[in-house]
Amino acid sequence: MTETDDVAVLEAANGELYAAIEAADLDRMGRVWLDEPHAQDVICVHPGWPPIQGRDQVLRSWAAIMANTSYIQFFLTDVEISVAGEVAVVTCAENILTAVGDAEADSSALSGGHVVATNVFRRTPGGWRLWVHHASGVLASTDGPTEDD
Amino acid sequence: MTETDDVAVLEAANGELYAAIEAADLDRMGRVWLDEPHAQDVICVHPGWPPIQGRDQVLRSWAAIMANTSYIQFFLTDVEISVAGEVAVVTCAENILTAVGDAEADSSALSGGHVVATNVFRRTPGGWRLWVHHASGVLASTDGPTEDD
Repeated sequence: MTETDDVAVLEAANGELYAAIEAADLDRMGRVWLDEPHAQDVICVHPGWPPIQGRDQVLRSWAAIMANTSYIQFFLTDVEISVAGEVAVVTCAENILTAVGDAEADSSALSGGHVVATNVFRRTPGGWRLWVHHASGVLASTDGPTEDD
Repeated sequence: MTETDDVAVLEAANGELYAAIEAADLDRMGRVWLDEPHAQDVICVHPGWPPIQGRDQVLRSWAAIMANTSYIQFFLTDVEISVAGEVAVVTCAENILTAVGDAEADSSALSGGHVVATNVFRRTPGGWRLWVHHASGVLASTDGPTEDD
């Protein structure tokens, strides 16, 4: 398998994480993440949260998020993929459209968010599985503090 | 080399990142990060920032942070290290003591911060080098939303 093949497969694996959240499908989410013998290595940092370690704990956090989200849609941009042997790092910007309250009754209840994510995948016999997800909100409107460049 | 050796070396490599920031030593910081042929893969997400990609751009961001920080000290806790072949993930909590304004004149100008970091290291002939640093502030005071566990 060439590295180009890896990149296409990784882009799909990364998209599957967000598709599972959008569909609020916990079984689908379970297939995204690393399982035994590495289940305890799994780490997830939701925006503003401390890290959650362990596959079961991480999936429980997603179940809670899904239960509290009536509607969510991700538009991924700036997807960067880098492979090193059996590990790959995918970074992307999550441009989020989400419903606050009863979105079906009032379209003005939709709100947007801008989050950046680092997703580390590990190659397994069953394909690339998510090992680490670290997401954080972007507060700055600039590209950083080096405006005097 | 056993995995136990790796863990000790990785803990030191991870500590070196924070020692370089504390010392405001950009050369030392440069030795922490991955270099050619992987310099362009380097990614850094400072708390609240969009990702910065590329070794030169990342080091420039650290130079800006060092220039604007009169005093900073890190107390690392919850350091978790996981190795997969030539890649390792280190997560830790950064308990930060930093100076706001002129700390030497007034000790009340010190402030604290709580940040979590995911640091991905890549094994190189010259040792473990930092590939990805993703840091984000912790807003929640609980361990997550699953308080009904």
